[in-house]
Amino acid sequence: MKISVMGYGTVGSGVVEVIMMNNEQIVKNNCLDSLEISHILDLRDFPNLPFSDKFTKEFNDILNDDETKIVVETMGGLHPAYEFVKSCLQAGKSVCTSNKELVAAYGDELLKLAKEKDVNFLFEASVGGGIPIIRPIVKCLAGNKFNKVAGILNGTTNFILSKMIRDNMSLEEALKIAQENGYAEKDPTNDIEGHDACRKICILASLCFGDHIYPDEIKTEGITKISLSDVEYAKNCNRVIKLIGSAEKDENGKICAQVSPALISDASPLSAVNDVFNAIMVDGNAVDEVYFIGKGAGKLATASAVVGDVIDCAVNKGTIKNYFWNEHKSDVLVSSDDMPTALYIRGFASDKENAEKKIESVLGKVTYLKRENAPKDEIAFLTSCDIRKIQEEKIKSIDSLDIQSVIRLADY
Amino acid sequence: MKISVMGYGTVGSGVVEVIMMNNEQIVKNNCLDSLEISHILDLRDFPNLPFSDKFTKEFNDILNDDETKIVVETMGGLHPAYEFVKSCLQAGKSVCTSNKELVAAYGDELLKLAKEKDVNFLFEASVGGGIPIIRPIVKCLAGNKFNKVAGILNGTTNFILSKMIRDNMSLEEALKIAQENGYAEKDPTNDIEGHDACRKICILASLCFGDHIYPDEIKTEGITKISLSDVEYAKNCNRVIKLIGSAEKDENGKICAQVSPALISDASPLSAVNDVFNAIMVDGNAVDEVYFIGKGAGKLATASAVVGDVIDCAVNKGTIKNYFWNEHKSDVLVSSDDMPTALYIRGFASDKENAEKKIESVLGKVTYLKRENAPKDEIAFLTSCDIRKIQEEKIKSIDSLDIQSVIRLADY
Repeated sequence: MKISVMGYGTVGSGVVEVIMMNNEQIVKNNCLDSLEISHILDLRDFPNLPFSDKFTKEFNDILNDDETKIVVETMGGLHPAYEFVKSCLQAGKSVCTSNKELVAAYGDELLKLAKEKDVNFLFEASVGGGIPIIRPIVKCLAGNKFNKVAGILNGTTNFILSKMIRDNMSLEEALKIAQENGYAEKDPTNDIEGHDACRKICILASLCFGDHIYPDEIKTEGITKISLSDVEYAKNCNRVIKLIGSAEKDENGKICAQVSPALISDASPLSAVNDVFNAIMVDGNAVDEVYFIGKGAGKLATASAVVGDVIDCAVNKGTIKNYFWNEHKSDVLVSSDDMPTALYIRGFASDKENAEKKIESVLGKVTYLKRENAPKDEIAFLTSCDIRKIQEEKIKSIDSLDIQSVIRLADY
Repeated sequence: MKISVMGYGTVGSGVVEVIMMNNEQIVKNNCLDSLEISHILDLRDFPNLPFSDKFTKEFNDILNDDETKIVVETMGGLHPAYEFVKSCLQAGKSVCTSNKELVAAYGDELLKLAKEKDVNFLFEASVGGGIPIIRPIVKCLAGNKFNKVAGILNGTTNFILSKMIRDNMSLEEALKIAQENGYAEKDPTNDIEGHDACRKICILASLCFGDHIYPDEIKTEGITKISLSDVEYAKNCNRVIKLIGSAEKDENGKICAQVSPALISDASPLSAVNDVFNAIMVDGNAVDEVYFIGKGAGKLATASAVVGDVIDCAVNKGTIKNYFWNEHKSDVLVSSDDMPTALYIRGFASDKENAEKKIESVLGKVTYLKRENAPKDEIAFLTSCDIRKIQEEKIKSIDSLDIQSVIRLADY
């Protein structure tokens, strides 16, 4: 069996490394004749590798090679990844990708095309790096109707929050250390503003609930507004702040998906997931809650997931059943603003007594929080559960309160 | 597609319930014509169910029904489960089982027979209840060579230990509550002596390392000797006691498998797994450590795993590649007694000063532990890492120390 790799960056080079390192076992365990890399597409030169002769700058060398039945896409970005993947599928080649941006933008179309051509479009590595999650959802949990899927989907922000929580480090300091360690990019926007987590929750939601959901449809909030005061207040009510991507069905069968910081209970398995680790919780109507935890990134870990997909393509003739979701529909989503949630609020009030009276008059009973050495005019409290936008309007109506933070509470 | 269920106990009735409850979605998502239950085998009568007409007391009704292509075995026990499963496979029917005793005893033989007949013998529910673990190992992580697999594999003992750790409850009290809640059987031997966990680690080890391992080959120790004093000493060195089943490759490629209590770090994801939850850690040479956590038992959760297998049999024509291990070989194992480990030791010594001198003269440097209100003659300490049986001999040579507990330290 011959495969080609498009993009020899971190993940692509990891795929080549894993296939070479574990080749004998992979071939034997999966009853393959062989598993060989025929071409590696990259615009850069790699002259001193033992397999330098496999590199090409021409996509057509892969497309026109009839012996290449499986193509790995680890280029990243939407273009030309989309065009290349589409051409490969049209030519009857299976594609395995780690490119979450591609899957979140074109998953429905590419899955449909793969099905038409009786080949596969697989993307285990697009969520949670090496953590097995896609196949467990579509295969092991195929007997379930899903209620909810949620998790810590971005290692960079989890690393930063862990530093804030455990080492009392400011967000800026923690980000700097993340960058120094290669956990955050020079321009960290995609991570810290939640866009990366958003793509991943879209993929998980599409998979669990069956209709394609686009990243720009769901409310996405990053971690840039989180302060150490918030971290401390959270600790004092036995919670921790995590960046959570979540999607759940409401009582009318509509899907509420969002990415936002959330105060989660320190008894939740997610609360113990620190540093660059990722965790995904899946809640099915038969299985209840199951958790998948591991490093969400890294060269060989992510490559492990891609190679698992490659092997599945190699051993299966034709499209693997139930890796599929339908094309986008306009009416499946409900906004997180319209869903009930309890909130954590922090703000300043020069006349505290007056502000507290007003808070209780508009919000009813709230739970005030304390922290050591808080400024005298700081107020922090938890509200009861109510529709988010109604609560936010009420809170804004309290003129005497200068609001600093609004974070949802979540139970996973 | 028609399936039959053998054994209408907790899991079997759960399988029937899940297939009926989620039928429409299962059929649609997996492109099946239908998924119907044709027969349910049980010696008891169930006269008042809407599907009472499907019950039979005759195994041959299932065996001779050509339309039944998939048989669920949820009878438990070795006989007649083994004979029935064998006959079904021989007749060209796939079998999905939750019966860990059967898989641990006859897995190699039944997998071989399934392969010969081009059908499947699947057992996702045999380890970790509803937690996806078998398919993630053989499929998602197929690109890895495995270094280690370990976990909290028995919910009953984890419930008891959680009560001891968090509520300072004695083992006897905790066991009583487990029995009252239906988490422990009247005769709890299989659980508290580690036999159940042993079968599960044998299945995981056979799967990860490729050769069948029998339960009676590996050292198995339960939780009956754990005292609240041990729990407290563990807490004071930032560890918790869990019953761990583990299997790992040593430097010569031999497998060391064991079931025993272990002191694990409270920073490990396993340390936060409480009550009846199970957790499995898999360590592959590409993916590093990944964790799978969920309820390890329960009617619908376990049924979820069985139904996932049923669906996989329904959508796949022929044997699914790489669900396989080789028959038993006599020389693949190395005893845990011959492996290096650090130990926690607790004992009594009337002449403490003298005993401590002797301890250090035979063991070298040890770390003494403290706890509040310890009896004056109690000594507890951690040893450094060395071959277990050498350490145990040395410890036994200390005449002045009356040993109460010896528990290994483990890093997962």
